[in-house]
Amino acid sequence: MKYKSYSHMNCSLAQTLEVIGERWTLLILRDAMFGVKKFSQFQEDLGIARNILSTRLNRLVEEGILKKVAKSKGGHAEYHLTEKGYALQPVLLSMTHWGDVYKPNPKGQRLQFLDRETRQPIRRMAPTSQDGRSLGFKDVVSVPGPGLLNS
Amino acid sequence: MKYKSYSHMNCSLAQTLEVIGERWTLLILRDAMFGVKKFSQFQEDLGIARNILSTRLNRLVEEGILKKVAKSKGGHAEYHLTEKGYALQPVLLSMTHWGDVYKPNPKGQRLQFLDRETRQPIRRMAPTSQDGRSLGFKDVVSVPGPGLLNS
Repeated sequence: MKYKSYSHMNCSLAQTLEVIGERWTLLILRDAMFGVKKFSQFQEDLGIARNILSTRLNRLVEEGILKKVAKSKGGHAEYHLTEKGYALQPVLLSMTHWGDVYKPNPKGQRLQFLDRETRQPIRRMAPTSQDGRSLGFKDVVSVPGPGLLNS
Repeated sequence: MKYKSYSHMNCSLAQTLEVIGERWTLLILRDAMFGVKKFSQFQEDLGIARNILSTRLNRLVEEGILKKVAKSKGGHAEYHLTEKGYALQPVLLSMTHWGDVYKPNPKGQRLQFLDRETRQPIRRMAPTSQDGRSLGFKDVVSVPGPGLLNS
């Protein structure tokens, strides 16, 4: 199936979805953030077809979100997150927190995310003011910047 | 095409993707957050096939993310975000901020998001400690909770 691309849209969200919006991609990135590096580990954990996994991993390498690292001694190559990949953590955490609330496991929270230093749970993901207040939906307004005004 | 469902996965991220991971859904929600309410407005803005739009909107209504509001005097029904829908704002903002950085418009930022009260830009979306510090990837650790330990 040929999808209509979002790449012409002058929208940072659409541009991001063009890269990570394909099915399985965010679960591959989840695994990568938990330390999965080898093709066989992704395949085993996700249970997806090898050709789909291969296509998704190659795309993430092309985009510079993962880098492919050759291993010596005939070992299989590994896929490591780059800075650009790690920078997607807020996306994954925001989705995870929403799922915690609206698609909970009846036995309780699945994973807790802690501040490494204090061992306290991090806050629920939310827009945050410069002075550190969590903001609600109606506390945020948007204004067009030069990338919209001059296009 | 029949997709393999994520719904069996005991993972809040997978559960969320099961609801909002379909193509176009996050762009529909973006439009809704900017005040789009009518089928024809979504259709015009997104330029997608009416049957796909209809399927996506119905799914969001079923999930309680949008509610369908009948209009009197023969006007067309509207789709309004619920609390559960507004709660997805951090997901959209996180993706938008990533796109701002890694898929920028060469003329500058497209949209700026401001704290309504102070008119200052909100912080870049990031995990945040209880006392309001933005945390980096390596500052966050995860521990299994009862929903994983008892399953």
